[in-house]
Amino acid sequence: MDFATLNALDYDDFVNIFGNVVEKCPIITAAVWSKRPFAGLADLEAAIHEFIDALPESGKEGILRCHPDLAGRELQSGTLTQESREEQARAGLDALNSAEVSRMTRLNLDYKARFGFPFVICARMNDKATILRQLSERVQNERQVERARGIEEVKRICHLRLQGLVLTDVPNKL
Amino acid sequence: MDFATLNALDYDDFVNIFGNVVEKCPIITAAVWSKRPFAGLADLEAAIHEFIDALPESGKEGILRCHPDLAGRELQSGTLTQESREEQARAGLDALNSAEVSRMTRLNLDYKARFGFPFVICARMNDKATILRQLSERVQNERQVERARGIEEVKRICHLRLQGLVLTDVPNKL
Repeated sequence: MDFATLNALDYDDFVNIFGNVVEKCPIITAAVWSKRPFAGLADLEAAIHEFIDALPESGKEGILRCHPDLAGRELQSGTLTQESREEQARAGLDALNSAEVSRMTRLNLDYKARFGFPFVICARMNDKATILRQLSERVQNERQVERARGIEEVKRICHLRLQGLVLTDVPNKL
Repeated sequence: MDFATLNALDYDDFVNIFGNVVEKCPIITAAVWSKRPFAGLADLEAAIHEFIDALPESGKEGILRCHPDLAGRELQSGTLTQESREEQARAGLDALNSAEVSRMTRLNLDYKARFGFPFVICARMNDKATILRQLSERVQNERQVERARGIEEVKRICHLRLQGLVLTDVPNKL
């Protein structure tokens, strides 16, 4: 999709196409539509970052809490968003053995009990081994460190989702 | 649901139950979880208002853009959220005659073309006649007046959705 086309989208189509670049936060996409026209992908991404960075800390935690657990209940029950399902599958999280599922479940619970938000990592940039290692390491961080780290990962996920959408025609979503 | 129970909910359950009190904006519910414990409904509602009011104007427009058209495409195609479907049905918007559908469609398009966000009104506090009248009147307002008015309506909708959830046990959502 070229940016002339993107900048000409009405908000309905814009949110329909880009509404989940930040997981379950279509408000962010819907808000940055006000900032068009965008000079390119980096400009659109900068508008998203600006919105996220201006949120109070509770709002950043809110973004994290809209993310599913990795290899969690929503993966098992088939209720992940399409984007999350593909990303978790690509990292091999839909094919864990029972020992790996148990370890992931326990670590996710520990992490959520400690921080009050889920462990967020860009699954497409990691495999199950590095995800498990990162989870076991990051659960020991301080809360504010993890909140900032989680938001960094949200931005990585957003970057790859945006690239995937802008560099294809996504006619099926229009 | 009493507030001791509500305040003891982990964020997963809290977002699962209250995530759509502002249409398609679970980030708001997920953010205000950080502010618990809540003394009561008014306190929870105040935390939601505080979050909304602190958003930049683009963020408030973002909230409005997450709302469906009244008697629009999503009602026809059955893709409304459960809350919106019930509210639109209660106002009689699922039983318009063809002339009413045409008028509503044209007015919605005019409104969206003028403001860049949809007409939002608390359907449960209105019927189809008052909704059509309000729509034809409000489309003539200034943009900043309608943005503020739309957010007022979002808060009315939120109030009724919260009441409906807190004053029942909603065990099916847990």
